[in-house]
Formats: sequence, C-alpha cells, structure tokens
Amino acid sequence: MPDLIAVDWGTSSLRGARLDAEGRVLEEKSAPLGILNVPNGDFAGTFAAQFTDWMKPAGSVCLISGMAGSRQGWVEAPYAACPAGPGELVKNLHWIEPGRIAIVPGLSDEQGDVPDVMRGEEVQIFGAMRLANLKDGLFVLPGTHSKWATVRGGKVMGFRTFMTGEFYGLLGQHSILARTLEADAPLDEAAFLRGVTRAAAGEGLLHNAFGVRALGLFGRLTPTESASYLSGLLIGEEMRAQDLSGGAEVIAIGAPALTARYALALGQRNARVRSFGAEATWAGLRALLP
Amino acid sequence: MPDLIAVDWGTSSLRGARLDAEGRVLEEKSAPLGILNVPNGDFAGTFAAQFTDWMKPAGSVCLISGMAGSRQGWVEAPYAACPAGPGELVKNLHWIEPGRIAIVPGLSDEQGDVPDVMRGEEVQIFGAMRLANLKDGLFVLPGTHSKWATVRGGKVMGFRTFMTGEFYGLLGQHSILARTLEADAPLDEAAFLRGVTRAAAGEGLLHNAFGVRALGLFGRLTPTESASYLSGLLIGEEMRAQDLSGGAEVIAIGAPALTARYALALGQRNARVRSFGAEATWAGLRALLP
Repeated sequence: MPDLIAVDWGTSSLRGARLDAEGRVLEEKSAPLGILNVPNGDFAGTFAAQFTDWMKPAGSVCLISGMAGSRQGWVEAPYAACPAGPGELVKNLHWIEPGRIAIVPGLSDEQGDVPDVMRGEEVQIFGAMRLANLKDGLFVLPGTHSKWATVRGGKVMGFRTFMTGEFYGLLGQHSILARTLEADAPLDEAAFLRGVTRAAAGEGLLHNAFGVRALGLFGRLTPTESASYLSGLLIGEEMRAQDLSGGAEVIAIGAPALTARYALALGQRNARVRSFGAEATWAGLRALLP
Repeated sequence: MPDLIAVDWGTSSLRGARLDAEGRVLEEKSAPLGILNVPNGDFAGTFAAQFTDWMKPAGSVCLISGMAGSRQGWVEAPYAACPAGPGELVKNLHWIEPGRIAIVPGLSDEQGDVPDVMRGEEVQIFGAMRLANLKDGLFVLPGTHSKWATVRGGKVMGFRTFMTGEFYGLLGQHSILARTLEADAPLDEAAFLRGVTRAAAGEGLLHNAFGVRALGLFGRLTPTESASYLSGLLIGEEMRAQDLSGGAEVIAIGAPALTARYALALGQRNARVRSFGAEATWAGLRALLP
C-alpha cells in the first residue's frame, strides 16, 4: 500500500500531509495558497510546486478535499448527495490523473425545500468517526460557515449550514456595532454565556444584535464584553436550531479556540462535547483508500 | 398660536417643515446634513443657516426630533422611559433656547432584560395616531433599524428594534452572498414572498441566509430573485417575532417602497396594513404643542 498525500485545499489556505500505510502523519505543510489566491489560476502548477517531491515514490496517490473541487477551484467535482458515507465519496472521486490525483466530491443535502452544500467538512466528519470509533452522532464544524451534520450507520443523513462566523465578522467590522465592540478581544466567558442565554430566549438575531448596542449605551456591556456577548448570541442562535434533548453528545471538529466556545455553549444546554482538530482531515482522507 | 418649525434631524439627513396653527405644511426643505455630516460639528451654525428665515416671525417655536438628541448630536436629550405618550415627551423637552428651540427626547424601553431605544420614531408614532385617529395599535417603522411598537391608551407601552435594513446591506454588500445577488434589483414579488414563507418555517436567519447561496448554486434563484428572496427572509424573520394573531391591523410608517414590502409580507400573515409617510413626523411634532 503506497503513501497517501492528503491535501485540504480551501478558500484561504492549502494544507497537505504525507501519510504512511497505517495513516501516520510523516510530514505536514501549509501555504496561504487558497483557491482564491492561486497565481494566474494555475492550479496544476501550484500543486506541482508544493507536492512534486512527495509524489515521487511510485504508486503515490493524492486525494484533495475542500473548495478545490468547487466551480472556482481546480476542477468542479459534482456533489455526492446525502445520505452518503465514505463509499459514496469514493465512487464519486474526480480523477485529475487516473489512479494518481483525485478531488473528493463535496456533499449536497437536497432533501428539504432548500438545498445545502459542503466541501471538505464531509472528510473531517468521516475522519472524526474513525478516530472516535463512532457510526452515529451529531457533528458540528464551527467556522465561517458552520455545519451541523447528523450521522447514522456511518452515513451523513443530512446537514445544515449556519453563517455564524461570517455574521460575526460582518457585525463586528461593518455594522453600527463595530464602533463599540472590540472584535479581537479575548473571550470573556461570563459575557459569552449571557449572549448564549439571551439567544435561547428566542427573540431572534435581528433584535438581539441591536441589544448589543443598547446594552452598551446603558453602560451594561463594555467594548470587550460586547464582543464575547455577540459571539454568544450567534453561537446560541445556531444551537437554538439543533435538537439537543436528552443530554446529547456532540462531536466538534475545528480550531481549538472555536470548539472551546461551542463546548461552553453546549455545556449550558447539558450536551457533552468531544473535540477534534486537523487530524480529522487526514484520517478522513485516509479512510477513502482501500 | 405661532408657526411651528418642525425638524427631523437624523443620521444622514436634515429635514424641516413650516406648519401653520392648524398644522398644515406651508413649506418643506431637506439637506444631506445628517448629524454625521454637520460641518465641524457646528450644529448651531448649521441650524441657523437652514432655518433662520423661518424662525423670524415673533413667537416661532422649533421642535427637533431624531438623532440630533443623541450623544453624537447637538445636545444629548435623555430618553423618556416607556410607557410614554406625547405628555411625557413634552415634559422632557430639552430646550436649547427656552421657549424657542427644543430637542424632543427619544424613548427607552427598560422593562425587559435588555433595554431598547428609539429617537425620532416616537414622534412618527404619535403623528400617525393623530392622523389615523387611533389610541391603540401595533406600529412598525421599517428601515435600517426597524421598530415595532405597541400603543395602548395613547401611550407607547413598549417596543423592539430589529436591524433588518442594516443586515440587508451587510449581506448584500459585504458577505459571500454579494457575489451572486443584485442588491439594487427591483422587487420580485414571488421571490420576496418565497423568502417570507421560508423565514416563517423558523430555521433561523444564520441558516436561511446560506440558503440564498445554495439556491443560487443549484440554479433555483437568479441574482435578481436572490435580492428579493433575501429581503423576504429578513422581513419575514422580523415578523416572526410579532404577535399577529386574530387578523391584526398594523400601522406602517416609512418610505412607500418599504412599507409596500411590509404590506406584502403582512398580507401573507392575514394582517391588515395602513401606511403613513413623512406627514406622520410633522403631525407628531405638531401634537407636542398645546
């Protein structure tokens, strides 16, 4: 069994890992060469510049997940439709060089009135399933566009995207709240949990966001508290849409600073959290090889 | 009884009207001299340049509503607290020149866990009450920061702000949706009502906003439809927080293009709508004189 070159090619960065036959990470690299920053749109050249050395051993295989498979990426790899497990991804691999370099399709959920899509997170989910030895569960992948996915029998049954991180950036940088909010302030747990609690009351984000300003006007939130309170409002709003009854366990995959916030918020809802980071991506890509 | 110089001094514009003893509008003017655009912060000079002629007749009185009474305005006029009717505004007029020029206080609602504030809309509400001959009702003032107010016995009992217009601008100009959405497209009623219906299903704005992108990816919303759909999502989200049971009547005050959208959305909820425009401001300021 050859080495696997596992690549996560996202919007803002390009990351890779060389894995041995047992899936151990031998080497990692990362560059700010996300699909929107590929010089002259030359994906093949950029790939070669980063990974030619790693691909030298005969029989090397490279699997690429993430936005590289989007319309704006290297080659558009049509979504696999939910319910889907690793098998559906393997069947729909989009080979750039047959047997050598393939793009992993994203997932679509077309079961409701409004479709939903992911690219890259599906691999992280299957990786975390493998690492946690789970075939069923509720998964959250926080970020610019957070994903909540329900897994049963090893397949993603359905999922939903929440623009939580993007809303935080918009409100903290471009809205009236930007004047009185220190978006980069460290987390204030008490203010964060006040925001989570406020969101749970169900008045809705359009109203609660204005509350950040009103609380500031009345001296009841400082600029640093405001940032954490807004973060809590948004993550709380996201959680309000989830079924967390009966002490659910949630698998959180992402950067530790983010999954820690979700763990705090979910703790308030009596949900248990297990967190995974980048290792889930590599384990997920490894799981697609025989 | 002297002429009244009625002034609405907001964030982006300065508007005035000269009213006779019966409240008829004799003359109107408007300039792009909102409180954020006052040269050198010289409010007195800017006021004089616009209104000295109108103030010449002996006994002329000028009442100013809007953001001119905020911390960033001419003089901070502390909020009157709800419940409040015209009498509470009169008691709390902030006189710049006694008996001659006064700033109307805004309203605060400090009855819940999170306070809320308005400046200027309170005058429009009291004006529309007078024009509609109403002492009770549900009022909406759509805009950057929409206000919903409950009036009973001629007093504003409480109100809530929704950042609907500002969210539309943020999402249409600065978010990932901006790429595939023509924010200035004319209203597409069918797409707008699809958005309103979608919001009513209660999945929340963070998720529904991403749906605009997903529907576009699947060719189920064009860029012009996307703008109207997003507008419907936002206005629908705002309405979801209102009690509109039993065929409520809603008084909408604002620009006709906006109140027309609210009338459409409210029609879908079986609410009746009566709309008022700028005349509500002048009638409201007139109602504060004996």
